[in-house]
Amino acid sequence: MTASQRQGGMASPPPDSGSLSAQLAEFLTGLRGGVAPVHLAAAVNCVIDTLGAIAYGAEQPWSQAAARHALASGSGGACTVVGSADPASPAMAAFANGTAAHAFELDDVHEEAVNHPGAVVVPAALAVAEELNASGLAFLEAVVVGYEAMGRAGLAVGPVSHMLAGFHPTSMSGVFGAAAAAGHLRRLDAAGLNHALGIATSLASGTMEFASSGGMAKRIHAGRAAEGGIMAAALAAQGFEGAGDGLAGRYGFCRVFTDDPQPQLLTEGLGERWMIDEITVKPYASCSDVHPMVQATAELVAEHGIRATEVEQIAVHTTTKVFELNDMDGTVSVMAAQYSAPFNVAAAVLTEPSDPAIFSPDRIADAVLAALQARVSLVPDPIYDATYAWKQGARVEITTTDGRVLERTVHGQRGSMHDPLSDHEIERKFHALASDRLDPGIPEAVRSLPDRPVSELTRLLRPS
Amino acid sequence: MTASQRQGGMASPPPDSGSLSAQLAEFLTGLRGGVAPVHLAAAVNCVIDTLGAIAYGAEQPWSQAAARHALASGSGGACTVVGSADPASPAMAAFANGTAAHAFELDDVHEEAVNHPGAVVVPAALAVAEELNASGLAFLEAVVVGYEAMGRAGLAVGPVSHMLAGFHPTSMSGVFGAAAAAGHLRRLDAAGLNHALGIATSLASGTMEFASSGGMAKRIHAGRAAEGGIMAAALAAQGFEGAGDGLAGRYGFCRVFTDDPQPQLLTEGLGERWMIDEITVKPYASCSDVHPMVQATAELVAEHGIRATEVEQIAVHTTTKVFELNDMDGTVSVMAAQYSAPFNVAAAVLTEPSDPAIFSPDRIADAVLAALQARVSLVPDPIYDATYAWKQGARVEITTTDGRVLERTVHGQRGSMHDPLSDHEIERKFHALASDRLDPGIPEAVRSLPDRPVSELTRLLRPS
Repeated sequence: MTASQRQGGMASPPPDSGSLSAQLAEFLTGLRGGVAPVHLAAAVNCVIDTLGAIAYGAEQPWSQAAARHALASGSGGACTVVGSADPASPAMAAFANGTAAHAFELDDVHEEAVNHPGAVVVPAALAVAEELNASGLAFLEAVVVGYEAMGRAGLAVGPVSHMLAGFHPTSMSGVFGAAAAAGHLRRLDAAGLNHALGIATSLASGTMEFASSGGMAKRIHAGRAAEGGIMAAALAAQGFEGAGDGLAGRYGFCRVFTDDPQPQLLTEGLGERWMIDEITVKPYASCSDVHPMVQATAELVAEHGIRATEVEQIAVHTTTKVFELNDMDGTVSVMAAQYSAPFNVAAAVLTEPSDPAIFSPDRIADAVLAALQARVSLVPDPIYDATYAWKQGARVEITTTDGRVLERTVHGQRGSMHDPLSDHEIERKFHALASDRLDPGIPEAVRSLPDRPVSELTRLLRPS
Repeated sequence: MTASQRQGGMASPPPDSGSLSAQLAEFLTGLRGGVAPVHLAAAVNCVIDTLGAIAYGAEQPWSQAAARHALASGSGGACTVVGSADPASPAMAAFANGTAAHAFELDDVHEEAVNHPGAVVVPAALAVAEELNASGLAFLEAVVVGYEAMGRAGLAVGPVSHMLAGFHPTSMSGVFGAAAAAGHLRRLDAAGLNHALGIATSLASGTMEFASSGGMAKRIHAGRAAEGGIMAAALAAQGFEGAGDGLAGRYGFCRVFTDDPQPQLLTEGLGERWMIDEITVKPYASCSDVHPMVQATAELVAEHGIRATEVEQIAVHTTTKVFELNDMDGTVSVMAAQYSAPFNVAAAVLTEPSDPAIFSPDRIADAVLAALQARVSLVPDPIYDATYAWKQGARVEITTTDGRVLERTVHGQRGSMHDPLSDHEIERKFHALASDRLDPGIPEAVRSLPDRPVSELTRLLRPS
């Protein structure tokens, strides 16, 4: 009889019962002090990229509302709300920073899991590391651990079915990533981390209703997941017991939030396949599913010196998903602009697509852009469906007014694991987003984290 | 174009679009200053009963872990964590108090919605009222409003299907009750309250995994819902916009968390049917589905002076639900004891069933009790299925060793809307639970709330 049973908890299996959740927890706790340098280096880039997204996102009105709530509700803490002089509790700092990271479609992606690990895991790990005055190394390890848990949970819930059923993957699977990262920093043992994952099951939330009747609630989904994971790990550290198989149990995460559970993906290839190896860093502030066509268009335009007035029409061969869900008028709202395939292709003809300012309210309504957008048409192509979502692709055909047909295929876009950005390119994105907002020495500080306390980074994230 | 669209939110319908969520919000905001005395009186009893449940529940180990987390994470606030000298933020105080209220199966029930409104709504309303230094009247109105929203959401999600799909109704629908109560106290207008409900949709969480692989996570479900609702209302007060139809939209609460959506129940009979009129106050610390058989047994025992040694066997005619889900060995854990029909019937022969101490770890394993429990058998009976869950019933037949058959039917148990407890009985339950734990003047303080600030109550909830 476990302590939980004696004291009145539901029956729980012994820690060695081998639930899939327990197996995942055991693997993750085994990583303490043993994360390979290549994965620490990947974590460094994810942290730099996420901090850039936070810097830009923090100025959006929904992020500011979330930050005000975080500071009001979590005062008395000592953790950094990026860009604010006032500290907050770990959970509330992570809520604010996670919201900012997810605020403008700039945050990294695990394409196959259809979730955004950086926006959840980095704020959670940063806040808990700061609270505990952790080493930079422990922080980076926690990021790797968090990405692994969030990616695995996202894959195991059957992400396509999960989304179609109306659940938002980033907040749903995110809570496990944050719990794992926070649990790593709190030095939970395998049983303790499994309790944290079990508690996290009770905190998974977030539906796709924002895509139906609107509002800003999507914007807090990453922050809420970060906050929930921190709570789960903190409770587990207090001796609070979670379900024995929160992820794969009968009413666990992978069963109730999907019609297509794939629980075996929680543990299949652990130690061989790494989630942090499969991350896409987004060059553009648009839905990552339209990135291949944006890249192809931008390359054609640059190579051939095409001007908008020379474009007769643009045909884009893409996935059925994009054909059905991203073929919208991008001139009506900022969010629509970020999700619209025709808008983003047109914008890539007219301007540098890596500049998030193209999605500002005044510029999305530009008449020239609207006219060019109207010349873009989408064609579903099974070639790209076959590799969706782990490898995204598109073929762009620009027909010019003088009768030329220029064609470019991108299959595995820039920034994805198939064609990753260099360290330099990631830092350039950071500076483009964070210039005038954060200390330019941040990328270097992140790179030096393996040898320094995390406080060397966090002090740079507050106004000087 | 709404502010949300201009600034980049998803498209949202105008406030007068008449979504069911908006209609509910409009009705609820219309109650400000206009709640009928009979409903305020019902709220008084619900508050007294919930405070008793909190007093007893706060000593459970899971409640203490939750309270420690609340005080660590929400320090800097000014709201009462019942029984603690240290205050917390509104959200974290509500998290701790909601966990305590739901900690030991003592909290009130809306039978048909299969949820526990008091454990969510009262802590949320109390914390926000204390933060805002509200009047006692506004607090009681907020309780009525919160019960209405939580009950309506619980009915509209199709509670039986909802549970069978693996979701825990109290935390799922609870967040709407807490959001409505908090929104009432924050004086949100109808559009603002609808935003709060839309945000709350993103915060609904909690699965039934605790019933499969164990742990204590169920215990935080009411507290988490209270905390989430407070966040939703606080964000809405900041201008953060929620979905236009968070409850009934395509990916809203009533569509994604059920196979049997009943969205029309969000608004059907508003102002005629009141959720707070349909509350069961539990005389016993067991699953409310077994209450009719406990009551029938206790009545037979009292009237006929039956001793355990005289019992040959006990046959209990009950619902299919109880037959399938409550026929467990109650001697193996406290939670099992609280849910076991045979255990509770046997305990009602041996002792006064209103004493929650019968579920203490040492007493549940008593050999006499185990032997008597083995003589209890269950029989499913369609008569009680026909009125489940809004009216619960059971027929108990005790066969004595000298050949008598004593029979009693209870259909609509004591404490339910069909046979409500008197004010005096509710106070007696409070004193039985809270004696030596809280100020005995609390029931009187609650009864005087319509004429006093809520601080007159909260000061009594901290150690003197």
